[in-house]
This record gives sequence, structure tokens and C-alpha cells, in this order.
Amino acid sequence: MVSAAGSLCMVGVGVNGYGTIGKRVADAIATQPDMDVVGVAKRSPDAGARSALSKGFSVYAPAERADRFDEAGIPLSGPVESLIDESDVIVDATPGGVGEQNAPQYAARDTPAIFQGAERHDVADASFVARANFDDAIGADRVRVVSCNTTGLARLLAPLDDAWGVERARVTLVRRGGDPAQPDRGPIDDILPDPIEIPSHHGPDVRTVLPDVDVDTMGVTVPATRMHLHAVSVTLDEAAPDLDEATVRDRLAAEPRLFLVPGDLGVESCGGLKEIAKDADRPRGDVWENCVWADSISVSDGEISCFQAIHQEADVVPENVDAVRAVTGLADADRSRRMTNVALGLDDRPVGPARDVREAGAADD
Amino acid sequence: MVSAAGSLCMVGVGVNGYGTIGKRVADAIATQPDMDVVGVAKRSPDAGARSALSKGFSVYAPAERADRFDEAGIPLSGPVESLIDESDVIVDATPGGVGEQNAPQYAARDTPAIFQGAERHDVADASFVARANFDDAIGADRVRVVSCNTTGLARLLAPLDDAWGVERARVTLVRRGGDPAQPDRGPIDDILPDPIEIPSHHGPDVRTVLPDVDVDTMGVTVPATRMHLHAVSVTLDEAAPDLDEATVRDRLAAEPRLFLVPGDLGVESCGGLKEIAKDADRPRGDVWENCVWADSISVSDGEISCFQAIHQEADVVPENVDAVRAVTGLADADRSRRMTNVALGLDDRPVGPARDVREAGAADD
Repeated sequence: MVSAAGSLCMVGVGVNGYGTIGKRVADAIATQPDMDVVGVAKRSPDAGARSALSKGFSVYAPAERADRFDEAGIPLSGPVESLIDESDVIVDATPGGVGEQNAPQYAARDTPAIFQGAERHDVADASFVARANFDDAIGADRVRVVSCNTTGLARLLAPLDDAWGVERARVTLVRRGGDPAQPDRGPIDDILPDPIEIPSHHGPDVRTVLPDVDVDTMGVTVPATRMHLHAVSVTLDEAAPDLDEATVRDRLAAEPRLFLVPGDLGVESCGGLKEIAKDADRPRGDVWENCVWADSISVSDGEISCFQAIHQEADVVPENVDAVRAVTGLADADRSRRMTNVALGLDDRPVGPARDVREAGAADD
Repeated sequence: MVSAAGSLCMVGVGVNGYGTIGKRVADAIATQPDMDVVGVAKRSPDAGARSALSKGFSVYAPAERADRFDEAGIPLSGPVESLIDESDVIVDATPGGVGEQNAPQYAARDTPAIFQGAERHDVADASFVARANFDDAIGADRVRVVSCNTTGLARLLAPLDDAWGVERARVTLVRRGGDPAQPDRGPIDDILPDPIEIPSHHGPDVRTVLPDVDVDTMGVTVPATRMHLHAVSVTLDEAAPDLDEATVRDRLAAEPRLFLVPGDLGVESCGGLKEIAKDADRPRGDVWENCVWADSISVSDGEISCFQAIHQEADVVPENVDAVRAVTGLADADRSRRMTNVALGLDDRPVGPARDVREAGAADD
């Protein structure tokens, strides 16, 4: 495979949409030893476009909006169609529903595309969480990385299902109302059942990547911006009479992309987790892992309960990177997940700093 | 029984502690046809003391703090000991832990006392929710009305247990961080597992009033002040194969102190429920009922799920009134609950205005 940069075995990735997810995916792609960012596509010559330029990314825009970029003094590398042509893979990080409209463009140009979780399942050949069903996406033309909450649930339920069998999971998703840079979102000083109907869509969405796991979800939205919090109860297929908290903790501690928050860190909240990530010089203070409070893990009558926090802006980022490897066949599941983690610095615990990327990637070989 | 006012069959109630709960209980007692408020005891001559005076309540204070009231120009009716002596029943609404310290005083003066849910279970002869275990409190010297969340859980689980048998309930309590007039409480823009350990104390507390109901609770605290929200899943003893949502809705709609929020009201949140209560001229905008969203009721595989909102400042108020009748033998469970509801205007749906009290009480006879 020949990337836009011309180097063999380097995959050229275009990122269409440079918002909350797109800008993070572009940065993550740039840290990978086997990928290049061909460019990013934006609709508006705003602060995000300037940030992309300052990072050295080539900026593309719809042809009919080129004038605006010209007026703003932001040089374009071409129309979005050129980005699609020049890329081996497109990551579509446009707003929900727009990806579906873009899909025919990608197909017409024979460029595999990775969509985000706000799109419908059937926009893609497969929905995707690397831990759950990497192989379903190998060689696919269209893959959908599921939403942040669904990703977080799949990462937790997959290892529990592997180890003990999940009969039924019940999860209350206490959802952040909006991201920190979304001042038009609510609520303020209020709590909403959201949706009021039960189950929420998250349970069925988990089954797009873990078809055999029965999970019921209830959604609640609250006035917070930092992370989602999941209250999780998992009934096991067969109650293992000798299963105890320590065994469950050990199992989860060994799981990549899952940070078992030790009690002695004194981290009491989502804000505390974000603070650790900032102290560790994580880019944008991102938390790519599920964060499971070790002291919350409880085992009773064949049921495992725990709390986990999910950073809605970040946890799907490594999944997008893995999805690129799946559709291009760059690496198998284990190798891809390890490469992604090493390049991002995601394997350092607790929530550690990013390491020098190419060096880390090489060391992992 | 002779009250302080001297009228036969009127019970004289003293309220020790005039904060969030005490002031509401005093108002509720004053609306009952068979009770008088002897007076209220406060420690500080603050806005609450002035409000009590303006409502016509006699104010008592610890003897050693009388000077402060004198300086503030607030006339006292005597020391707290006098209030205890003059009352047939004391409702202790002092801060958690203080009630336990006060208990010997009540015992020494042979005055039955009603404590609040922040006290330990063993401060009293019985914990109390009128729907669950009124009879346990009949003639008791010391009764503890359980906390707002526990009261809300017992009111919902008792009728479900009566109708179909509750095998196990799993509840995520999304808790308001503080009351509207508690500016020192948090969190701001954060979500906390609270407590991190599972289960929270609420599940065991439910068993103090419903000993046969198995309920696991997980607590989460969020930046909101208006109400708590409960995400409830109830596994039934024996799956009733023909049980459907409509049957469950009908059962809950018939339950006093439980407001089944119709979908067509357009009430999406706790704030919406409070708005209805204010529009209905409820005192302080209080919501005494559990509020269960009708559209949230879901039945699947022998499991009932729903959302309910609980007004932390208000739902225990009618329970305190009933507890007075239980300890004094004024009425049995059904009659007491009905009298309380009628006097408060709690039987009007949706969340209705208070009616003229004595008239309503008389009509109920």
C-alpha cells in the first residue's frame, strides 16, 4: 500500500470533519508509526482550522466554501474530493447524520471509510470496538466506530463475558449534558431521564459489537461536562461460588484501555480523573481508557457491580486508529491495539504521559 | 389525650429543629384537623426564627442561647425542655446525629419522639414509612422516619412487592448535590460515585421498613439541587408471563403518594416537576409524592424498570405526620394516610393545590 507521502507500508489517512473527535483522531493518527495524516477537511475557517494549520496538517474544504478560507487567509490544499482521492482511508468525523450523506462519495472514489457512532449502524458493513470485534472490520469498506458510551460498555463487558459469561448487564448511564466547549447544551441544575423510555439505545448498540451479550441501559443526563459515569451491574451466566472482588479486580487490571483507579489515589470524581490526565501531560487532558474505581467493585450473589467513568471526547480515539488498521489489513487485532496504545502512551499506568511516538512504536516491534 | 391547647382528641406536637424538614413538618402538622403545633425550637435567631414567629408558631430555644434571641428582638416561649414537657409528641428535625443526643431528654420527660433518617436505625424502636410498616410504630416511644431516598424506594417497592413479589431490586440513585439553600455543597460540573463502595447504605435502610425486600443501591452525586432521580430495575419473584406495562401503570396510578407523570404533560426533568408544583400553589413548591414517569415503565423478562424523582426536602413530610398518629394511636394506617393526604391536598392529581384544611379533614370523616 502506498500512502500519499509515498513511503511503503505507510497508510495515508484523511480526516473529514475536524471537531471534537476529528481533531483528536488526526493527532492520534499522526503519532502512529505506520500512518500519515494526508489532511483534514473543515467547513469553516475558524479557530479549529488555524489550529490544524499550526500543527502542520493540510486543510481541505468544500469547493463552494473556498472563498471563505481565502478571505480568512487560510490556505487550502484542495476540495474535499481531493482529500478523499489522496487518502488510503477516510475517517469521517462529521456531525451525526452527515457521515451517511458522505458515504456515497467515499464509495464512488473507492476509499474505505470509518464513521462515528452517531451514524446509524447500517451506514457500515460493521460496527466496531477493537476489544470486541476487530476481525469483523478486516478489509471492510465501511466501518462504524460506536459511540463513547457503547465503546466503554463493550470494553468492560467483553472481558467479563470472556472470563465468566455475562447473562445480563444492567447499566445506568449518567451522561454529561454537553462537552466543555458546547455552551448551548444543558441542563443547568436539573436531572433528566434521557431518554424517558427504557431501554435507551445504548444497550442495543452494544449488541452490534457483542451480539451475545444481553445489556439493558437507562440514560440520565446531568449538568456536567467532563465525563460520563456508568453504574454497572452484571449478572453472570453461572454464579462462580468462589468469585471474589480481588479476582475481578485482577482480571480488569490486566485489561488494556481500562484503568483500575486505585483507592489510594484519592480520586473521588470524574473531575479528579481529568486532573490526573492533565498532570500527566496527556494531550488536551484526554482520558482514552475506561476508568473503573477499584473500590467500587462488588461481587454478590453471582453479580458484579462497579462504577466506571468514560471521557466522551476521547475513548473512541484509539478505536478509530485500530479501525484504520483493520480496514487496511496493516495489523491484526492484538498487534494493532498494542501499537496504538504504545504510540499514544496509553499503556502507562496510572494515566500516563504520551511517549516519543516513533521510538515507542519501534520498541513495540 | 389532652393537647397543650387543652382540646380533647387534639395532639400537641413540638418540633425541635426548624430547618429544611422541621419547618415543613410544622406547616404540615398545622394543617391537620387532629393536631396542634405547640411550638418550634431553634438554636439561632435567624430568618427561620422570624418566619416561624410570623406564622404564629411559639418559638423555644436552649436556655443558654436565650440572650441571642433577646438581642435580636425575638420573643421566646421558653427553653427547649418546656417545649418537650408541653408537647404530646416531639418531632426531632435537628441535624443528623443530634437527634441521638437529644433522645435521653425526650425519654426523661416521657415524651414520644419522632426522629429523621439521618439518625441511626437503632436510635428508635422502629424505622418508619407509612406505606410499608405503619403498625410497627403504633404506641412506640421512639420512631425514625427514614431518609427521603429510602422513603421513595419503600413507597415504590411496597406496592410492587404486594402485587407481584420483588425478588431483587437494583437502583441507581442519582442524588442532588445539595438543597437550593445550601451554597456550601457541591459538586460543580462533576459527577461522583457516592459512595464509591457498592451497595450504598440506602438498600440496607429499605430493609428496616421492608425486611423481606432485597434491594441493591448504587449512589451517584451530581450538580443539581431540585430532586433526586432513581433509575429502578425490579426483578419479580415469578415472572408473570402476561404482565405488561399497562398493568404496572394501572397499579402504580392507584397508589397514594405516587404521582404517575403522564407523557402528555411534557415534563422532561426534575425541574419540570417542581414547576408543576409551584404552578399548583404547593407550599414552597413542594412535591410530597414519588413522581414516576409513566412512559418510563418498561416490562421485560420478568423485570420492571422505571424512573422516579424524589423531592428530598418534602417526601418525608407526610410520613412525619403519619408517625405522630402512629405513636399516639390517633388513627390506623389507612385512616391516617388518608387524613394526611386530604389535609395537605396530596390526593389531588396532578400535583394539586392545598385545600382548606379543616374542611378537607372534616369531609374525610
